[in-house]
Amino acid sequence: MVKVANGTITVAKGFLAAGVRCGIKKSGKADLGLIVCPTGATAAAVFTTNKITSAAVQVSKEHIKSTKTFAVVVNSGNANCCTGKMGIKNAIKMCAELAEQLDIIDPHNILVASTGIIGKQLPISKITKGISKAVAALSASPKAGLDFAKAIMTTDTKPKQAVRRVEIFGKKITIAGAVKGAGMIAPNMATTLCFITTDVAITKPLLSRALKTAIGNSLNKLTVDGNQSTNDTAIILASGLAGNRPIVSRCPRYKKFARALLELCNELVRQMALDAEGATRMFKVVVKGAATKADAAKAARAIADYPLVKCAIHGGDPNWGRIICAVGSSGVKLNPDKLSCRLGDITVFRNGKPAKFDVKKASRVISQTEHTITVDLGAGGYSDFCCGCDLSKDYVTINADYHT
Amino acid sequence: MVKVANGTITVAKGFLAAGVRCGIKKSGKADLGLIVCPTGATAAAVFTTNKITSAAVQVSKEHIKSTKTFAVVVNSGNANCCTGKMGIKNAIKMCAELAEQLDIIDPHNILVASTGIIGKQLPISKITKGISKAVAALSASPKAGLDFAKAIMTTDTKPKQAVRRVEIFGKKITIAGAVKGAGMIAPNMATTLCFITTDVAITKPLLSRALKTAIGNSLNKLTVDGNQSTNDTAIILASGLAGNRPIVSRCPRYKKFARALLELCNELVRQMALDAEGATRMFKVVVKGAATKADAAKAARAIADYPLVKCAIHGGDPNWGRIICAVGSSGVKLNPDKLSCRLGDITVFRNGKPAKFDVKKASRVISQTEHTITVDLGAGGYSDFCCGCDLSKDYVTINADYHT
Repeated sequence: MVKVANGTITVAKGFLAAGVRCGIKKSGKADLGLIVCPTGATAAAVFTTNKITSAAVQVSKEHIKSTKTFAVVVNSGNANCCTGKMGIKNAIKMCAELAEQLDIIDPHNILVASTGIIGKQLPISKITKGISKAVAALSASPKAGLDFAKAIMTTDTKPKQAVRRVEIFGKKITIAGAVKGAGMIAPNMATTLCFITTDVAITKPLLSRALKTAIGNSLNKLTVDGNQSTNDTAIILASGLAGNRPIVSRCPRYKKFARALLELCNELVRQMALDAEGATRMFKVVVKGAATKADAAKAARAIADYPLVKCAIHGGDPNWGRIICAVGSSGVKLNPDKLSCRLGDITVFRNGKPAKFDVKKASRVISQTEHTITVDLGAGGYSDFCCGCDLSKDYVTINADYHT
Repeated sequence: MVKVANGTITVAKGFLAAGVRCGIKKSGKADLGLIVCPTGATAAAVFTTNKITSAAVQVSKEHIKSTKTFAVVVNSGNANCCTGKMGIKNAIKMCAELAEQLDIIDPHNILVASTGIIGKQLPISKITKGISKAVAALSASPKAGLDFAKAIMTTDTKPKQAVRRVEIFGKKITIAGAVKGAGMIAPNMATTLCFITTDVAITKPLLSRALKTAIGNSLNKLTVDGNQSTNDTAIILASGLAGNRPIVSRCPRYKKFARALLELCNELVRQMALDAEGATRMFKVVVKGAATKADAAKAARAIADYPLVKCAIHGGDPNWGRIICAVGSSGVKLNPDKLSCRLGDITVFRNGKPAKFDVKKASRVISQTEHTITVDLGAGGYSDFCCGCDLSKDYVTINADYHT
């Protein structure tokens, strides 16, 4: 597998992109993005499990059923959520407008995504004008891909992109992704929007399976503030132009592709965590020795979500008591006499008792940009993980000042 | 029912108290408190449901089974948690030492509580000396009660006390309480220590029932940072010296007492929320129209715990979208077309759609020291509530800098 530096979503064969300003954001920053696959792509998607979903999610859930997808239109600065029938009408209008501009007969072949403030109607005339502008700007250049990655940002401080290359049936295939964070991120995707392009030839069911698995083990394992937004969407488009013999079964080639896709998603998660609102570092919580897989996941998330743990990591304080407290409070089965905890390679708690350790060294470990906390519940053979980030004053500033 | 201003735990007949410095806290602040009932009190207690419990909790869970309780010894600055057999030995030693000093034969008649850092052994010789000092300082004066309230503080910025008086069988009875917060507070009590004295004559089972109900509807409805500590304890001691005919059944007098106890606890909760780490205001979330009581409680807590809601309230921003997002993400049954939300008396979301409202007025409502958020799920007839506080930069400062 090859990591392509500075890659962008237009690196995969068969895709054009654009990112423009259409005037949704008061800041005047780019707020409308397009991805177009002129030959038609096989597409798959994963959506939020929040019971309140945006109009874009509701419309795209229908449109993803089409055999082919020609384009995705995304706006930032407005979530088009809690906007009733008008919201649905506007989301459909975005697809219809783009379909018309691209001379595509059926708007169902277009997907739509939105992110931003909840409860306001979209400025639809600005958006339709923006779609014309974006269509005129469509290009396969790296700059166009970057423009797209910028246009989907909200409180993100930088665009997030990654590319992986892998050989399938003797052909080089490319997988490229762009995501936006940065708050309201929790297992099951939150306010994340994730767009992946690939030129692999693969069937729709297998593409869908690979996406679900990859998202389940990457984006859905990241928690920033323990919640899940109304708009989360991950979309993958496969142009099939890499020239590989199509992947039609869960053969070794499928597994190779799925692994590359997961690695790409993990790289995107890394960028998201490090650019989470106010975050200065990320950490991975691995829980072992759980009685069930669900217990392992629950305990890992309880630790990654616990404000006192997040603050301790922000302060570089190896306060393992807060980790143990979070585990005990999570309700999972544990053996108090076997419970153990490591910060990086340093054991701080062993078999229910504090271990002697070098506090300064442990402080250095958790002050790194990335580190791992390992907890052994001593209650069984299951394990799982969750990724989180530290909690800083800037998180509060960003979220107390982002006014409606 | 009468509210007694500036009251303290020694106001109830039959109690002495003390609060002294014994040297656990590096700051040199008071860190050891005593409550003594020389005639022996009927006692009841509620403990944390965290699966990791402090040595003090483990010992007091045994000692509360005694018919009579003569005293409670509390230390702050060290949680005596994750301290193994030595921790248990030390907690028992605290009871034994106090029993000896008070000339009480059985240490089982003494309760113990600890709060502070997890994972360090108690400086037991300092504590035993402190117990002598505290016994010498025992007094029924208001100052002694205040000293106790100060000695149990950790990151609290002020002592928290309340007193209520109510007539039972023609006699005035007093209920007085002292609590400490201030972080690690979540439904089911977290790092809360709560001590209540009363001179009512009542049986142990009824006292226990009244305490459980009151705590369940007050302290267990407060969330500061969504977690629950290893040390939470609420203890009530009833001296029986008010002279009332003993309460022996769930008669109207029992109900009157239980109501007064609940009101006292709610006043203590109010003080805790407003003195929560970094908090500047508190809010009550009422969830109505739930399919089950559990759903109502879950949704209320999801809102009160959600960092983005807490930040919005800190910023005085009536960003109801975050409230709706928290509800949708909580997993409870809801009817998207009936979902409604009010900030104070201002409807901001009605039947699944944004309502027109005066943003400045709504901002004023949520900028008050106390306000209520009401959410109707439109899915049934159950309701419940949860209290929370705002999230400020100071919370981060306090918890990133509180070093082990």
